[in-house]
Amino acid sequence: MRTVVGVALSRKTARPPTSTFRIPFQPSLPLHNWSARRFTDMSQSGRHKVVVCRDLGPDAMSLLKATPKLDLVVWPHDRGCDRTWLLDNVPGSTGLVVMLTDKVDSEILGRAGPSLKIVSTMSVGYEHIDLKAAAQSGLKVGYTPDVLTDAVADLSVMLALMASRNIGIATALAREGQWPNHPWSPFTLCGPQLSTIASSPTRKVGFVGFGRIAQATLARLVPFGITHCLYSSNPSSPTNHERDAELARAYKLQSVTKVDVDELARESDFIFVLAPGGRDTYHIINEKFLKQMKRTGILVNASRGTLVDSDALAKALREGWIWGAGLDVVEGEPSVTIDHPLVKEPRCIIIPHVGSATLETRTAMAVRVAQNLIAGILGGSMPAQVDLSGYR
Amino acid sequence: MRTVVGVALSRKTARPPTSTFRIPFQPSLPLHNWSARRFTDMSQSGRHKVVVCRDLGPDAMSLLKATPKLDLVVWPHDRGCDRTWLLDNVPGSTGLVVMLTDKVDSEILGRAGPSLKIVSTMSVGYEHIDLKAAAQSGLKVGYTPDVLTDAVADLSVMLALMASRNIGIATALAREGQWPNHPWSPFTLCGPQLSTIASSPTRKVGFVGFGRIAQATLARLVPFGITHCLYSSNPSSPTNHERDAELARAYKLQSVTKVDVDELARESDFIFVLAPGGRDTYHIINEKFLKQMKRTGILVNASRGTLVDSDALAKALREGWIWGAGLDVVEGEPSVTIDHPLVKEPRCIIIPHVGSATLETRTAMAVRVAQNLIAGILGGSMPAQVDLSGYR
Repeated sequence: MRTVVGVALSRKTARPPTSTFRIPFQPSLPLHNWSARRFTDMSQSGRHKVVVCRDLGPDAMSLLKATPKLDLVVWPHDRGCDRTWLLDNVPGSTGLVVMLTDKVDSEILGRAGPSLKIVSTMSVGYEHIDLKAAAQSGLKVGYTPDVLTDAVADLSVMLALMASRNIGIATALAREGQWPNHPWSPFTLCGPQLSTIASSPTRKVGFVGFGRIAQATLARLVPFGITHCLYSSNPSSPTNHERDAELARAYKLQSVTKVDVDELARESDFIFVLAPGGRDTYHIINEKFLKQMKRTGILVNASRGTLVDSDALAKALREGWIWGAGLDVVEGEPSVTIDHPLVKEPRCIIIPHVGSATLETRTAMAVRVAQNLIAGILGGSMPAQVDLSGYR
Repeated sequence: MRTVVGVALSRKTARPPTSTFRIPFQPSLPLHNWSARRFTDMSQSGRHKVVVCRDLGPDAMSLLKATPKLDLVVWPHDRGCDRTWLLDNVPGSTGLVVMLTDKVDSEILGRAGPSLKIVSTMSVGYEHIDLKAAAQSGLKVGYTPDVLTDAVADLSVMLALMASRNIGIATALAREGQWPNHPWSPFTLCGPQLSTIASSPTRKVGFVGFGRIAQATLARLVPFGITHCLYSSNPSSPTNHERDAELARAYKLQSVTKVDVDELARESDFIFVLAPGGRDTYHIINEKFLKQMKRTGILVNASRGTLVDSDALAKALREGWIWGAGLDVVEGEPSVTIDHPLVKEPRCIIIPHVGSATLETRTAMAVRVAQNLIAGILGGSMPAQVDLSGYR
């Protein structure tokens, strides 16, 4: 017997009722009406129950829907999936689609039972999944690296420009109707310039972490006339001198050099934090680092909040150790309230972790999630599978 | 007899007393204490009285101060120069340094008298100077083109990213402590992506006006993966096919094409308005233009407010004809109050005409002003002189 439950995701639910904040009409937001079907009996041979913890948008949902033999059970709200709903629905499933906010621990895996073959997450990180338990159950885990590289690199450049050009203050002037009181003036609202000009021909850019996103950011900065690239990364990994020389040649930079974080802090005009989170990078940007930076230095963090000591950064901004900061991530997010020391700093640009939030990238991530899931269940190679060999 | 009046420009005066808006500490703002001297008797042979309508910052002021035979009279406040002060001080001067906000008409030139040789303005535009009267008096006029190209191009890229990525809304969420109510979600705050990705490999960028700033902006957009460049410019000027082909080749674009504004509106994903003001371009961005744009289209204006019909743009944003807009200029500025229709639009980024507002560029502009002035008085070639031959 099958019970079909129809649910609807409307655009209206994009605004949580607890908030008074107005998010305007989004002409082509891919949220859509989606009818999910819930099957309470999966015992018919050859069919696979798939529990989807969040509507994935039209492209990915159509892909799943068009795949034979999948019976979809979709969380019917436009907010994070309730754990009780997941516990209720996961038994007997073959596939599970989750977000970074859905904890997949041994309880969930136990409730799913031996039918479960794959967990597919819409995220680059997979710290929310108990990889050891997954490996021991012989599961596959899919994730979505790479596709968000460009969106995050775009945003990193934007944050550098916003933080240096006093854009928090500039937009506030216009928004609060203060422009008439601040007519044009030779030096008001001036900040350090990202691009070089004849009278200021050197610009050193530093990267804490030098992976794909950092290198995509570097590529975007080249036509701004930057002259030197410094980076620091895992000290135990060998320096790739050949790659660095090739980057310098291709981009016509005076140098691309791996340095320690102290030299990076001292020498860079703009610093981009684009390294993984975790214990090794915890508070790598601290008082000591910030005190070494230039007074006109700019700090951008578009990786993980834990890399930056928020109190130290707030102090650095308040006391003028550095010029400004642009943050897509803050330690302890989303619990960042108006009392947060960084929210109070006018030279600190804060945006709520929207690094990969473009229609194109989130759609591509969702499609990747669906592809991983389908290949994981029906066979074929998964586009991006977490290597669990170390956990078995 | 000489009367010397010492004045001080303190950082505090950077905040007009009429405003409650807080501009934070600026660690290396080049405003400084500057002592101006006022000479009531300029008859001693070989000396030149120079009236300076605004402190030009340490670099340019030191240059003027170090120049022999100049006696400087400097407006002592960090706000626009009072006309009465200028009328009182201009008699007997050889040189005059002005800003865009200082009207140099026949009354000023008449009061200056036959000793006046040069007017040096810290601006690219010179619509505030009566060029005909200046030409008839045999004056030289210096200005500051080119030096601001890079700063404005930087800002144009930033505005495109801010407008597409919903940054007005995103920063407001963080600023107003609403982040906790808007945790990560697959499609919230998503906007169109400037850069291309595998699943979205085409990006067409349009320029209204294709001069130095537009081309510098184009150069910056290349590593974002844009594929097509469209531009419209003065219809009467011939198309430079050779230059366009060379740009396409150098930047590996599929095309660089001059089109009419209708095609530009229809085809472009991102549109940058970077053309001169004046009658020919008045409201070139109007309802008709905006209605032809893509629903996900982005409009950036970093040239002159008069090119964009503000009411039409507000309607386009309100009704979802386009995705977003980023404006450094607004018609009628600085009289842009909280009642302005564009200030009310959450998808409209507005900043108060800070296109060239970097420490490096404004300093370079100020130095150019001083160099123009010195060459205009003492001889030698002026770095940038307005061609007055048509006015004689």
